[in-house]
Formats: sequence, structure tokens, C-alpha cells
Amino acid sequence: MTADADTVARTSADAMWAEDGASRGMGMSLDAVGPGRAVLSMTVRADMVNGLGLCHGGYIFSLADSAMAFASNSHGQAAVAQHCGVTFIRPGRAGERLTAEATERGRHGRQGIYDVRVTGEDGTPVAEFRGHTVTMGKRPA
Amino acid sequence: MTADADTVARTSADAMWAEDGASRGMGMSLDAVGPGRAVLSMTVRADMVNGLGLCHGGYIFSLADSAMAFASNSHGQAAVAQHCGVTFIRPGRAGERLTAEATERGRHGRQGIYDVRVTGEDGTPVAEFRGHTVTMGKRPA
Amino acid sequence: MTADADTVARTSADAMWAEDGASRGMGMSLDAVGPGRAVLSMTVRADMVNGLGLCHGGYIFSLADSAMAFASNSHGQAAVAQHCGVTFIRPGRAGERLTAEATERGRHGRQGIYDVRVTGEDGTPVAEFRGHTVTMGKRPA
Amino acid sequence: MTADADTVARTSADAMWAEDGASRGMGMSLDAVGPGRAVLSMTVRADMVNGLGLCHGGYIFSLADSAMAFASNSHGQAAVAQHCGVTFIRPGRAGERLTAEATERGRHGRQGIYDVRVTGEDGTPVAEFRGHTVTMGKRPA
Repeated sequence: MTADADTVARTSADAMWAEDGASRGMGMSLDAVGPGRAVLSMTVRADMVNGLGLCHGGYIFSLADSAMAFASNSHGQAAVAQHCGVTFIRPGRAGERLTAEATERGRHGRQGIYDVRVTGEDGTPVAEFRGHTVTMGKRPA
Repeated sequence: MTADADTVARTSADAMWAEDGASRGMGMSLDAVGPGRAVLSMTVRADMVNGLGLCHGGYIFSLADSAMAFASNSHGQAAVAQHCGVTFIRPGRAGERLTAEATERGRHGRQGIYDVRVTGEDGTPVAEFRGHTVTMGKRPA
Repeated sequence: MTADADTVARTSADAMWAEDGASRGMGMSLDAVGPGRAVLSMTVRADMVNGLGLCHGGYIFSLADSAMAFASNSHGQAAVAQHCGVTFIRPGRAGERLTAEATERGRHGRQGIYDVRVTGEDGTPVAEFRGHTVTMGKRPA
Repeated sequence: MTADADTVARTSADAMWAEDGASRGMGMSLDAVGPGRAVLSMTVRADMVNGLGLCHGGYIFSLADSAMAFASNSHGQAAVAQHCGVTFIRPGRAGERLTAEATERGRHGRQGIYDVRVTGEDGTPVAEFRGHTVTMGKRPA
């Protein structure tokens, strides 16, 4: 991991972030990015929960999916999600800040495999996500 | 499938829908529900897309996840998602109406397996989802 | 589904079967094949079980994987497994004949999605499998 | 990780190994075991390959599944596989020694999540596996 790789990751993330109105609209922040790695966080809003104050699983998935997107585009080539699996461990709660950390398990040709752990404010796991990406032969954006 | 089973499905769905502010907030509509089955639809809004007008995968997952929730709660017992896998086939587009149809593949003790196909306005598949649920020993809500 | 499609499926299956010493070695039989579909069965042998007489999950997976292989190669183009998920429902037992029926959920470009249900002698489900394949640009063999 | 935890892992593994005729029958060896961790290896035999000398995916899955079994039973409670996903990266070849290393991603109540990487003799990845287990309320065997 060279300074160059870090710069590519940062530049790719900036280009993506500018275009990614959906992640911004969910209130996500991009907390860290590097080669094959990204950390995003998001607060569970009132419009994201059911009557019991529990976060819809789709928003937890969204946070993990966005974290994978930044990690998988960090090498300067556009990559998209192909197959993703998520295991829900405990609910996210209204007002809770969730953090997703994506790490690269491996890249094999055009394929990439990413693990994302979503944790709550107390640091306990909310969900475990594994996603598969494929590169598109162009720059991130 | 008796009239009673249909009534239980409808009653469970009504109770869930009243509480599910998150699905309503994403603009979903509950188009059909029956024993082990549910159809939901949602229009891809401007706040759900990136700069290219392509829907964030998390919203596609959310629609499928909600469809599974209604299908898996249709028997009158509360069930929650445990492990879900989704395969993205083509992007959803800004303004496009997406439909998710959930069908029950089987129930085995407290476990349930559900298949959800998300299709676009032209009827072509946007995503294929398979989810696993576990019942909680109480009524849906 | 035309007679031609059936002939292609049969010809592809014959070519694969001749080469597939591993499936034959596990004692599998190819019971039916058609466009996007295959049925294989296998008896759980003494060398496939643990001390309690329960079949190793790997052999159940193998039967499902072979069924997918025949279904996904049935169109006359070689396809290989990429990502597979399996849910174990009940154990297979020593001496029990297991049957795997693979059906095609969809083909999208080079990608295919297949569902395989493995059932026991009493017809109850032993496992549910969903697999993803990719075509290789050559004939099955 | 105390000496006690190591002893429990070793004792559980010995009890399992004595009963696991299927893994032994595939020629697996148990190379290492500890709390939440196991390493197994296996040579791809002539009866495990197709006419091109490529290992049946089911045997690769079997090796990973066995590694998860030893890792998930290492805490002294019997655990069984529930849902497993595997991604095939490159074929295993006739005569090649494959190694599977299982690590525990987390335990949550009765549920466990395990990652298993299968590598070839050259150290490159052959498959990535993620499995989910559930404990059974008795000792391993």
C-alpha cells in the first residue's frame, strides 16, 4: 500500500461521493477510505424505523452496500455489486449511529470479494455482509 | 389455502403495514398478500439514485426484504429476516416502478425460506433475492 | 421448449456424464435432463456418514451442484459454478436415496441462476440450494 | 484464549474426528485446531476429478464445511451447519493438496459465523466460504 494507492482511493471516493446522492440522502458520512477499505456511518432516522423503533433491514444493507462500493472502487476502476449476502444479528435502533467497515477479502480477475461488518454505537455487531463485485472497465463515478 | 388462511394473511398484513413507517416512507405499496405470498411495488425516486440515474442497490434490497416480511408474517406469527442473499441483474432507473413478488419456498420448524423476484416496468428481472426467516413466537406487528 | 432444445440438453448431458467421473464415483444417476432442468439421485453410502449415520453436508452439496451443472450446461454452452448457497434442512441418513431437482430461475447474459431442491425418500426437503453460473464460450464436456 | 480453551478445542476435535468417517474417507487430515479455528487439508484424488483433471466443487465445499465443523465445535458445544455460501475462484487439480482454514467471525447466542478460505499448493485461493452454524445443546461427537 503506497501513497499512490491511497491517493487513487481518495480520488475515486471523491468522484463517487459527488455522484452518490442516494447515500448522502440516507445521511451517510464517509469516515475513511483506503486501498480495498472504507468506513461509512449513518444515524438511524425516524423515517427508517417501524413502530417499535427498529431499523428496516434495507437501510442496514444499504450502509453495508455503500461501504463495499467505496472499498471496491478504491483501486481506480469502477466496480459494481453482483451478489451480496447479509446476516442480521441484532436490530438497529432509532437514533443509533451505525458504522460499516468494509475490507477486501480478495480480488481475482474482474471479481472482488468484500466483507462488511456493521456495528452499533456500543460496538456490538448489527450485521455481517459479504459481497461480490465485478469491475466495469472504466473509472469510478 | 382456505378463506381463513387468506383472512389471517390480510389481518397480519394490515397490522404490519400500520407499523411499518419505513416501507411507507420509501413509497412502497402493498399490492397483494396471501398465505406465504406478497407483492409490493415502489417507484424509484430522485433521492434513491446516483448521478447516472441508477437506483442504489439498498433500495432494491429494501423492496425485496419488505415483500419477504409480508409473506413470512402471513401465517399469523411474527417472523424476522435472518440471512438474505441478493443478486443484482440490471439497474433500476429513476422514475421506474419496481415490483417485488415474494413466494414461500418452504417452512421447516421456526425457519422459513422465501424467494423474491424484483422486476422493472418492462417485466424484466432487476434482482433475485432469497431470504431466510425465523419466527418469534408472537403475532405480527 | 422444442424437440431441438431437448436434443441439445440430452447431447450436452451425455458429453458431460462421460467426463464426470466424480459424480459417477459418488454413485449419482442422471434421472432426467431437459432445457434448464436436471434431476439426479444418489444413495447415501456408509463412507458418506458420521458415527451417527448422518450424511456429510458436502455430499448433499455435491449432489445439488451436479444437478445444477447438468441444468446449466443443457443449452449447449459450457457453464461453471461461481457462487452457491445451500441451506441444510434435515440430515440425510445412511442408505437413504436423495434426489436433487435443478430448475433454471433465469439467464442474464453469461450469468445463470439455478434453484435445486434436495429431497429424501419420503419426499421431504433435505436442503435448498441456489447457485450462480457463468458460461465459458465453449461446448459442455 | 486460555490453555483451558485450547484443551476444550482439542478434546472436542478428537471426539468429532473419531466419529467423522466421511471426512476421513475423503482423505482429510486435521492439521490444527484451537478455539474458533481449524485447519484441514486434503489431496485431490483421481476419483474426485472430471476428465479434465479438475476437482468437483462438492469436494472443495466438503473440505471447507469440515473445517467449519471443527472450528464451530471447538468451544465444547455441538454445532451444525445451517446456511453456507461458497465462491469458487479457481479449480483444484488432480493430485493437488488443498488446505482449508476456518476462522470464527462471531458468535451471537446460538448462532455462529465462520469464514473458510481454501487454498492450493501454491497458496493461491481456490474458494472462499462463509457458513452459519447453530448450537444443539449437547457435546460434540
